[in-house]
Amino acid sequence: MAIDFPDSVRELVTRLKKLPGVGPRSAERIAVWLINQRSGEAGLLSGALAKVDQAVSLCRRCGFFMDEGACAACAAADRDRTVMCVVAQPTDVLSIERTGQFKGRYHVLGGTLSPLDNVTPEDLNIDELCRRCGEGSDVTEVVLALGSDVEGEATSHYLVERLVRDGLQVTRLAHGLPAGGGIDHADPLTLMRAFTDRRSV
Amino acid sequence: MAIDFPDSVRELVTRLKKLPGVGPRSAERIAVWLINQRSGEAGLLSGALAKVDQAVSLCRRCGFFMDEGACAACAAADRDRTVMCVVAQPTDVLSIERTGQFKGRYHVLGGTLSPLDNVTPEDLNIDELCRRCGEGSDVTEVVLALGSDVEGEATSHYLVERLVRDGLQVTRLAHGLPAGGGIDHADPLTLMRAFTDRRSV
Repeated sequence: MAIDFPDSVRELVTRLKKLPGVGPRSAERIAVWLINQRSGEAGLLSGALAKVDQAVSLCRRCGFFMDEGACAACAAADRDRTVMCVVAQPTDVLSIERTGQFKGRYHVLGGTLSPLDNVTPEDLNIDELCRRCGEGSDVTEVVLALGSDVEGEATSHYLVERLVRDGLQVTRLAHGLPAGGGIDHADPLTLMRAFTDRRSV
Repeated sequence: MAIDFPDSVRELVTRLKKLPGVGPRSAERIAVWLINQRSGEAGLLSGALAKVDQAVSLCRRCGFFMDEGACAACAAADRDRTVMCVVAQPTDVLSIERTGQFKGRYHVLGGTLSPLDNVTPEDLNIDELCRRCGEGSDVTEVVLALGSDVEGEATSHYLVERLVRDGLQVTRLAHGLPAGGGIDHADPLTLMRAFTDRRSV
C-alpha cells in the first residue's frame, strides 16, 4: 500500500485546494509550510478563520462586510451623502479608498449580472440600491464603478435603466489607457475607447 | 477616515498573506471567497487547521508526518528494508509514491543544506539517517532523491561523505531530459548532464 499523508493532513489539503487560485501543488505546499512553522501558524490561522466565520456577515443595507452587528461603511458619518459609488465586491471598496479620490458612500452589489453563471438581478443587492438612491434620498449622483468586462458592462447598462429618476445623475468610471501603459501595449478595444473619450488639454 | 475591512477580516487577510505563494491580492480574494461561501467553508477550514495543529507532528525517526502518535511511513510493514530513499520534504514522499516505482523505505531530511538561509547539517534529520543506515542495519542502498539545484547538490555531496560504509551503496536520481521535453527546450546544463549520463540502447 502506498504511503500517504495522515488523514488530518489530507483533509487540510482538500480544503485548501478549494480556495480560489490555489491548485493541488500549492495546497500541499501550504499544508507542509503550516505544519513546519514552529510559531503555530496553523492554530493562529484556524483562530482567525473561526472568528470571521462567527462574526462577519454582509451588511443588509450596503453589502459591505459587517463585524458584530456594526457596518463601518454605513456608520462613517463624515462621508458625502450626495454621491453613491456602486461596486461589485467588498474588496473594490478598499481599492477605491486607496486612491483617496472618493468621499461619498458605497453600495456593494455582491457580484455582476452573468446569465452563464445564473446570476440574475434578484441575486444582487440591487433593490436596496434603488431604495437608497430613490425619491426622498440625498443622492444626486450614482457612480458605477464596475469592471469593463462583459458582465460589468451588462450590469452597468441594467442599472442605468433601473436608476433613472429626475435629478439623479448616473456616471461610470472613465475608460482609457492605464497609467504607465504605452500605445503599443494597449489592445484595440482599449485604444478605441481612449479615442472616443479623448479630452481637450 | 477611510473605510476598511472589519478587524477580524483584516486579521484573516494578514494571516493568509503569510502563506507561501499567496500575495496581498490573493489573500483578499481568498478572504472574500471564504466569507461569501454559504456552505460555511471558513469554519470547515478552521476546523481542519485546528485538527492538524493539534494532531500532526514530524516523526522523530523518518521525518514524515505523524498523526496521533503513529507514523504511516514507519509502520508500513510490506516495504523493502534494504533500500532507503532520502528526500527533502514530506511532499516528496507522495511524489515518489505516485510513480509506483519505489518499494523501499523513506527518510525525510526536512530541508536541504543552505548556508545563506542558515540551514546547517544540525538542522536536518541527518544523524538519524546515519543511524538508520549504519552498521547492523538491513540497508544496502541509499537513494538520494534531492533536487538538482545548488542546495540539493550540496546536500547530496555532504551525505555521500557521511554515509560511506562497507557494503552500502549510495545512488542518486538520474539527471537528463524531462519526459516530453525536446532538445530545443533543454537548458545547456540539463543537456550536458543528459550527454554525460547517456546510455546504450
